[in-house]
Amino acid sequence: MELPEIALLFELADIADAETLPRFRVGGGVDNKLTSSFDPVTEADRAAERAVVSAIAARYPDHAVLGEEFGAQGNSEHLWVIDPIDGTRAFISGIPVWGTLIGYSQAGRARMGLMSQPFTGERYFADGEAAWCEYRGQRSRIGVRPTRRLDEATLFTTSPRLFSGEGLRRFEELEVRARLTRFGTDCYAYCMLAAGHVDLVVETGLKPYDIVALVPIIEQAGGIVTTFTGGRPEAGGDIIAAATPELHAAALAILHG
Amino acid sequence: MELPEIALLFELADIADAETLPRFRVGGGVDNKLTSSFDPVTEADRAAERAVVSAIAARYPDHAVLGEEFGAQGNSEHLWVIDPIDGTRAFISGIPVWGTLIGYSQAGRARMGLMSQPFTGERYFADGEAAWCEYRGQRSRIGVRPTRRLDEATLFTTSPRLFSGEGLRRFEELEVRARLTRFGTDCYAYCMLAAGHVDLVVETGLKPYDIVALVPIIEQAGGIVTTFTGGRPEAGGDIIAAATPELHAAALAILHG
Repeated sequence: MELPEIALLFELADIADAETLPRFRVGGGVDNKLTSSFDPVTEADRAAERAVVSAIAARYPDHAVLGEEFGAQGNSEHLWVIDPIDGTRAFISGIPVWGTLIGYSQAGRARMGLMSQPFTGERYFADGEAAWCEYRGQRSRIGVRPTRRLDEATLFTTSPRLFSGEGLRRFEELEVRARLTRFGTDCYAYCMLAAGHVDLVVETGLKPYDIVALVPIIEQAGGIVTTFTGGRPEAGGDIIAAATPELHAAALAILHG
Repeated sequence: MELPEIALLFELADIADAETLPRFRVGGGVDNKLTSSFDPVTEADRAAERAVVSAIAARYPDHAVLGEEFGAQGNSEHLWVIDPIDGTRAFISGIPVWGTLIGYSQAGRARMGLMSQPFTGERYFADGEAAWCEYRGQRSRIGVRPTRRLDEATLFTTSPRLFSGEGLRRFEELEVRARLTRFGTDCYAYCMLAAGHVDLVVETGLKPYDIVALVPIIEQAGGIVTTFTGGRPEAGGDIIAAATPELHAAALAILHG
């Protein structure tokens, strides 16, 4: 099946950026005259999703859409999956590691995806064959690095508070075995994995819109992303991304062995 | 006593940026031909500090300097305190929340400071009277927000692994009481506090070069920064920064009550 043009994903990202970036970091600073009832992240989330979904419908009226804010619309094997702001806690804290996620899947398999971080001026994307980074207009191919051993791996998760009970015990064992563990990055960590700066990302309780756009970026950069039971990641849940199959197996043996 | 010109801190930041930014994210991606003995963060750290210290010596040969990489030089009540890359773990993971810290103190009291994050194009600085943010050439005044209660506060720390034993128990109580807790930001979180996006930052075991440059930014934005025992923060140690005195007192009652 033919894929959409990557240029369309860029148009959709431009549309989202126009709604998110102007609302990022409003409310801070000495000129704060906002009332407490104003919620910029919710406004940005809704406005961005509405605008992106409307642009998809104009171009592909028969495609289905699944968004974080407004749920599922349509019924088609062509599915667009949108998270207007992945990382709302980073967004409201002023930290530019949130991103707009735009994914496209065919018959349940994620094929193209884009993450836009408009404050830093970065976009990470997968066009169906390869993964790329664009930073302030400069485009370059990205790829995972060949890390195979846990003791050479940099591990990311958004927060250790994602884990509890037996899951926490297993995560802490993974943390002890890894070379370096960092917290607090949401979608940004998956892009750093695809770009060869990070080796492992694990997160629990993801929704499809948290991961579908990132799956092609990771896979087309040479990485591997699955559930903790080794299945396809498109439906979300507990998700692990790894730079190599060897590292993926070593981490899964701890998380689910 | 007269203060140096803020333009000098910008010149020093330009000098540091020229050493750090070109080494950020090298080694990632599909064209990685680097050997494992190449250590870009150490190279960037040393080259940036050497260049900054040399520029200070050219302008103020009688001032003292304290740097992360090369230690103390000179003996004067005029002291420059430099951390060429605060957040080396973020730097090596590709996450742009590291920064170059350049602080200036007189008789032990931090008076001016600058944090430069060249990938995002941000500088946070304090000129002796007020605190500012510059983002891609646009300068604006920054100030803390008036958060007084823990249950309205956003709390940051680099990692919960900074704490152990009784300190961990106290940190976890603070985390439960705060509205939102996030991890993983190093110097960036203090600047977000100064800019009114974050309300509390706590970290343990800091060195003077981790905090001196940030103290004037926090204080001249209207915030408060002390040790866990309420003392001046210039010597480092366990450090708390808060948006308001009320919030500072409420957090200290838990961390050190």
